[in-house]
Amino acid sequence: MGIIALLTDFGIDDPYVGVMKGVILSINPNAVIVDITHSVDKYQVLQGALILRSCYKYFPRETIFTVVIDPGVGSMRRAIAIRTSNYVFIGPDNGVLTPAAFDDGIIDVYEIRKYTLPAVSKTFHGRDVFAPVAAYISKGGLIEDIGGRVSVDSITTIEVSGAEVHNGEVIGKVIYIDSFGNAVTNIHPNNLKSLGIDEGGLVNVEVNRVQYRIPWVKAYSDVKQGELLIITNSFNYIELSVNQGNASKTLKLEIGSEIVVKPCRQQSL
Amino acid sequence: MGIIALLTDFGIDDPYVGVMKGVILSINPNAVIVDITHSVDKYQVLQGALILRSCYKYFPRETIFTVVIDPGVGSMRRAIAIRTSNYVFIGPDNGVLTPAAFDDGIIDVYEIRKYTLPAVSKTFHGRDVFAPVAAYISKGGLIEDIGGRVSVDSITTIEVSGAEVHNGEVIGKVIYIDSFGNAVTNIHPNNLKSLGIDEGGLVNVEVNRVQYRIPWVKAYSDVKQGELLIITNSFNYIELSVNQGNASKTLKLEIGSEIVVKPCRQQSL
Amino acid sequence: MGIIALLTDFGIDDPYVGVMKGVILSINPNAVIVDITHSVDKYQVLQGALILRSCYKYFPRETIFTVVIDPGVGSMRRAIAIRTSNYVFIGPDNGVLTPAAFDDGIIDVYEIRKYTLPAVSKTFHGRDVFAPVAAYISKGGLIEDIGGRVSVDSITTIEVSGAEVHNGEVIGKVIYIDSFGNAVTNIHPNNLKSLGIDEGGLVNVEVNRVQYRIPWVKAYSDVKQGELLIITNSFNYIELSVNQGNASKTLKLEIGSEIVVKPCRQQSL
Repeated sequence: MGIIALLTDFGIDDPYVGVMKGVILSINPNAVIVDITHSVDKYQVLQGALILRSCYKYFPRETIFTVVIDPGVGSMRRAIAIRTSNYVFIGPDNGVLTPAAFDDGIIDVYEIRKYTLPAVSKTFHGRDVFAPVAAYISKGGLIEDIGGRVSVDSITTIEVSGAEVHNGEVIGKVIYIDSFGNAVTNIHPNNLKSLGIDEGGLVNVEVNRVQYRIPWVKAYSDVKQGELLIITNSFNYIELSVNQGNASKTLKLEIGSEIVVKPCRQQSL
Repeated sequence: MGIIALLTDFGIDDPYVGVMKGVILSINPNAVIVDITHSVDKYQVLQGALILRSCYKYFPRETIFTVVIDPGVGSMRRAIAIRTSNYVFIGPDNGVLTPAAFDDGIIDVYEIRKYTLPAVSKTFHGRDVFAPVAAYISKGGLIEDIGGRVSVDSITTIEVSGAEVHNGEVIGKVIYIDSFGNAVTNIHPNNLKSLGIDEGGLVNVEVNRVQYRIPWVKAYSDVKQGELLIITNSFNYIELSVNQGNASKTLKLEIGSEIVVKPCRQQSL
Repeated sequence: MGIIALLTDFGIDDPYVGVMKGVILSINPNAVIVDITHSVDKYQVLQGALILRSCYKYFPRETIFTVVIDPGVGSMRRAIAIRTSNYVFIGPDNGVLTPAAFDDGIIDVYEIRKYTLPAVSKTFHGRDVFAPVAAYISKGGLIEDIGGRVSVDSITTIEVSGAEVHNGEVIGKVIYIDSFGNAVTNIHPNNLKSLGIDEGGLVNVEVNRVQYRIPWVKAYSDVKQGELLIITNSFNYIELSVNQGNASKTLKLEIGSEIVVKPCRQQSL
């Protein structure tokens, strides 16, 4: 268990991530540290949870995910480590870990009480709590030793709501916008298939009160450069995109924007 | 062959680069992964090609360059691996690899057909194709095994045009602007020397229809803070710079801006 | 001695940092390279020095800090390596290394003359001088071998001024603003304690000619979301912050902004 994957909202302009790595290597010089991203929007626990859930499966078994999106640092919120079927997840008990952890299958949960730095600040638990515990586990330390076992029922969970299907429509929303401007929705391909919509055809998409007829394609390049499309993205969500363009700018989309999809045979108003 | 160097236009705000690293480490836990940069402008194949060519020689022999600037992902464009005299280059067959690969000397080229992830999406070949094949080769896998050998003549090449010299002028253009605002041109020092211009003297530089008399210096600090200069940069191109300033802002330069250089003894119009 | 920690103002949008890593791994394939940050504001030697001093202690003993904030590259400024009680610091002799090095205790200082790349440019000593020397030392090379020993008195030092205490006030200034908008001052908790101000109570803070009564708390979450606070931060400085907000935007703070703190029992004018 030597791989530690970091996910934070620290950004990389400050030395905070570097300091966490220094702490890890001080405890386990052989740790392999991988950055998932440090650009989670500040304090956005749900966004961090979604990113973690979307990508954890691509990491080696026994990877120790160390997640610090922690607006409650220094408060009474617990610091926890979750052992799942294949991984360990470490972070604040604010829900950021749970969509991924439940998806992989939780075995047990521990509240972190030991193997922190000797002096624990109330402002930087990434450095003082989460990094050293991750390092301890990465060199073979037992998760049982880091503190007390707590009940799975006691940990904070986050609702990652799915899209709703009724009256022949799928009503979803934008949950993530990537740096290409692709707008990832909470709509699953099966939501569309349940309405008889199939990949390869046109769908009716309503965004900001405007109706679009958009092809549901398999590759961005299935439409011409600059044209709108929807696609099942690489994390198995429906995504609005513009081939070699920026769908979120084109459609003025934001996190939370409502997306209504229905079959194209239905006439718009 | 354990070093994998990554160059993409993914940025680092999304988890995409982290996921590629997770995939690589899942296949070869001992791989050493180095980021060249992930800030190539989206879809700018030529820019990626220029960056790769400028820096590949500074990496250890047998480094596996994994380059994902891939506007055609999911289309019929091939995924290829090129073996050169000292390195392996992996990426889409859109020309991004070729300036570096030809510079190092191509031995043979293979189309990637095997050692991808079991399920290959049409949207994220960095994760599903290029990362796993790089990992396979990094742990000693044979490039011959990844697919079929293809002819060097069949791969897509990119024109990296040099500057033109005629009528006693060098006519070049800006090909890269770095984060210091230094404007790198496609002019080589020899272009200037062919006109009798020598390092150490003043040259006449025309930019945006304005003529400047600028010293060709050896170090940024050879002029006062805030003053214009030209210099043979660390990748052996002529670069416009301002000592401790930002030449591209000062001169309103962009990628593609024309730069005309002539000896200073010539009078301007 | 295998860990090399990098701190530069290069940013990560260009391939410069990647090239330094390529050079290091060419010389020592087993080097472990850690990024502190590459987002020091361009040419800001003092900022780099402050960051280095704040974080070096969290890295393993024998870490080789390689610091390139180097507006004088190519000039007569020396390139130096400093051996301290626990670490090695490599960089330009412009003061960027000294606050950290003096803090750890300087043993001896060497001017770099050997173990550079064969050809040394005048524009990129990160690649040609500092990276190769760091790599040389990281694989067990002797610091004595890299060049001539120079006197500690001869190296450039930087003044990191502390806050002033007089007339019952602490007069400090903002020395760093992090990506959360937290404004770090040069005021130490002891400065406040010398005036009888204790953690837990209200203090009077004057910023931009406006007086605020702000609680001195132990955790950001000790005040409501959006409220101002001061706190002893994780590097033991007094910091102005807004819980889950951005203090520097709220108070229009910049590097150098004056901060005057006095006990709250004193009436403002």
